[in-house]
Amino acid sequence: MNQWKIASQKLVFKGELFDVKEINFVDKSGKKKIHHVVERDPIVSIFPLTDSYEIYLVSQYRYMLKRTTIEAVAGYVEKKETSLSAAKRELMEETGIEAMQWEEISRVEMAASVFKGKMHLFLAKELEIPVIPYENEEEITLVKIPLSDAVKKVMDGAINHSASMIGILMLDMLRIQKKL
Amino acid sequence: MNQWKIASQKLVFKGELFDVKEINFVDKSGKKKIHHVVERDPIVSIFPLTDSYEIYLVSQYRYMLKRTTIEAVAGYVEKKETSLSAAKRELMEETGIEAMQWEEISRVEMAASVFKGKMHLFLAKELEIPVIPYENEEEITLVKIPLSDAVKKVMDGAINHSASMIGILMLDMLRIQKKL
Repeated sequence: MNQWKIASQKLVFKGELFDVKEINFVDKSGKKKIHHVVERDPIVSIFPLTDSYEIYLVSQYRYMLKRTTIEAVAGYVEKKETSLSAAKRELMEETGIEAMQWEEISRVEMAASVFKGKMHLFLAKELEIPVIPYENEEEITLVKIPLSDAVKKVMDGAINHSASMIGILMLDMLRIQKKL
Repeated sequence: MNQWKIASQKLVFKGELFDVKEINFVDKSGKKKIHHVVERDPIVSIFPLTDSYEIYLVSQYRYMLKRTTIEAVAGYVEKKETSLSAAKRELMEETGIEAMQWEEISRVEMAASVFKGKMHLFLAKELEIPVIPYENEEEITLVKIPLSDAVKKVMDGAINHSASMIGILMLDMLRIQKKL
């Protein structure tokens, strides 16, 4: 067993969406080490799929990346919320879409060290699309494309956001395996 | 154009592997906002594939996740290093494997807001495996499995590390498209 012993830990930065912890630990050989770890609240990422294998994504300007991206609908799981209720809420808030069938297809770890954050990926089916075009509060454009086009965008780099890439490729694999 | 104006920014935490910045900006309506953003140095993630579609992964105990994981070989791009030279160095350091053919298959953004960090994913082919089992300095076990088994592990959650999932699913897609 390679488990290192944590001697002590303290909070060194508290943000609205993440904390930074300083962890003092002792490795197998008895050597003391210090690591800093970022802990983010869990997020949900939603992949709404129509009966004809079209997927709803969103396009928005991301000031951190200095460009407009195409991504899956996503958001934070709020306190007192399950990941499923967060997924339903985020899909409604961002797109006005409701879905009758929900399945958590993956529980992803953003990283294996330093950055701790869970991403719950949901497939949403049997969609109810609002008749009147939905206006969300954020500056988001809804994009509906065939799943196969979304896969192309992942493969050629047009979609390069980690959770979005995973969900799209997993959905395509489920389609190939005739599980969709 | 939805671009928000950055009024000022300052460093609020400096770690060995990441910084935390406080960004003050003004949105389109003139409202002031504060965001905290974590910036990580870029990492490389390497996917060495044999001629018979087997992939080399690594198993190691991850104290942050409190379990032993299966992941792709990965590491930080050091100063004065290109992502390709970092990939070659990490593969050698962790596994002793050399590869004659290298291709960057994706440049992934860890997240679209809050967490900034690029992940360069490399396919490595024409492998030279050390004859004498390689002993690395870290506590890592080399795992060679068919690519199809790796895909299964991604789909059933046994592999749930983001960059590893993306690389494995992309390699499988390239195989399906007969581009491998």
